[in-house]
Amino acid sequence: MTATDLLATLRAVNDSAAFNRWAGFTVARAAPGEIDLTLTWRDDFGQYAGFLHAGLAGALIDTACGFAAFTLSGPVLASRYSVNCLAPAIGERFIARGRVVKAGRKQVFTSAELFAVKADVEKLVATGDAILVPTAP
Amino acid sequence: MTATDLLATLRAVNDSAAFNRWAGFTVARAAPGEIDLTLTWRDDFGQYAGFLHAGLAGALIDTACGFAAFTLSGPVLASRYSVNCLAPAIGERFIARGRVVKAGRKQVFTSAELFAVKADVEKLVATGDAILVPTAP
Amino acid sequence: MTATDLLATLRAVNDSAAFNRWAGFTVARAAPGEIDLTLTWRDDFGQYAGFLHAGLAGALIDTACGFAAFTLSGPVLASRYSVNCLAPAIGERFIARGRVVKAGRKQVFTSAELFAVKADVEKLVATGDAILVPTAP
Amino acid sequence: MTATDLLATLRAVNDSAAFNRWAGFTVARAAPGEIDLTLTWRDDFGQYAGFLHAGLAGALIDTACGFAAFTLSGPVLASRYSVNCLAPAIGERFIARGRVVKAGRKQVFTSAELFAVKADVEKLVATGDAILVPTAP
Repeated sequence: MTATDLLATLRAVNDSAAFNRWAGFTVARAAPGEIDLTLTWRDDFGQYAGFLHAGLAGALIDTACGFAAFTLSGPVLASRYSVNCLAPAIGERFIARGRVVKAGRKQVFTSAELFAVKADVEKLVATGDAILVPTAP
Repeated sequence: MTATDLLATLRAVNDSAAFNRWAGFTVARAAPGEIDLTLTWRDDFGQYAGFLHAGLAGALIDTACGFAAFTLSGPVLASRYSVNCLAPAIGERFIARGRVVKAGRKQVFTSAELFAVKADVEKLVATGDAILVPTAP
Repeated sequence: MTATDLLATLRAVNDSAAFNRWAGFTVARAAPGEIDLTLTWRDDFGQYAGFLHAGLAGALIDTACGFAAFTLSGPVLASRYSVNCLAPAIGERFIARGRVVKAGRKQVFTSAELFAVKADVEKLVATGDAILVPTAP
Repeated sequence: MTATDLLATLRAVNDSAAFNRWAGFTVARAAPGEIDLTLTWRDDFGQYAGFLHAGLAGALIDTACGFAAFTLSGPVLASRYSVNCLAPAIGERFIARGRVVKAGRKQVFTSAELFAVKADVEKLVATGDAILVPTAP
């Protein structure tokens, strides 16, 4: 698959998920083993203090990990993911960078970093990892 | 604080979070060290196959853990959470049951179970845990 | 397999691991989906303050989870485990109680609790979970 | 503290832990925010198939994370760690590289990679992360 095809395929997968459409997740970049997922801030993403809800931080990390796994292993299901909340997630937009650490036959190990962007300055606000299971036989 | 006051306080905290309002998270029960959080299914919660998005499963688990911590330790911030996706999360509604495992001065350890409910039958679809940090001085 | 056979089989697996023999891990109980693993304190198990080393707490939790998985799924390999250190692990002996949360075909989800025992009083000092992958075809 | 002093201090901490002495953990390198911990293979480190026991992989990762945290935050206690077992841990020696991701006042977030070395070739066999809590007032 060419890089262009990969990006188009991932965007189609992303668009097929109702929650991703509601939030406005966008696949900004895709290469074998790594992808960038972006989100533009909206007020309905907030937790009680008005920062990005930790659940959305997790959704970005889980999705970025899953799409990174897809680039090497095709369709996968999330088996487990974790999220480290390093700093208040405040920004105009967010970038989750996912990458594959090890693509096994039974399990794909991945990790991701989540950056908040404000006035074009990126700040690391969360990290996470995920294990995905390939669904193809 | 009486059980009634506790429930009212948690519901006010829940209502102060824009994302919780959008999703319709409801604090159904609260006691010292444990709470139930419910969610009624809507189509915009789906991942690509139409199941509950793993990010929303995580948001329910993280929120249930945080509210359980609140019942013993007051205001807290999520430091880290993880989600085990045991089975496809398909249901008419969902219940996340959070409980405190150990409430320390610096860190509160919690865990949660997420059940999908269909025709009044509960099925365990995810588990998770979270570490929260009390914010009060 | 009868409960007696299960216990004998797990003890043979345990004895085949050099590290388990060095430490003196003992399979004290086995039933379908759950096992107890015990360890008697020795001074060479200590971290810098003289408590049980977090690595040994993890070894007990990982092993208890793996053996619990074995009772339902046969031979497995650890894919990932985590350890929550709730309290200083000080005791005359330790009991790790592992149980299966969900035994899937591709992955077995498990959790464990680690208790320190002092003058016959058990205290919860750590919790953890593990994902195991069945190795049989 | 100079780099030489930092290394000497960490080696003294390492030597004060009985388990680290038994296993032969060695602090090979230390700089602000990162350290290398090495271990030479011995037969009593094996799990049932003769590979490095996952508990020892975890002990190396947890210790490397703790020592990395120490370089920036002084004495710390492990609060939680996790271990991803990527490949069978077989080698003549092992190197755990720990680094600080975020050193907060209440919590230090760290991660580590574990490499198996065979004929001078390094292979990534495990990854992990840990949260540490500073103990100084």
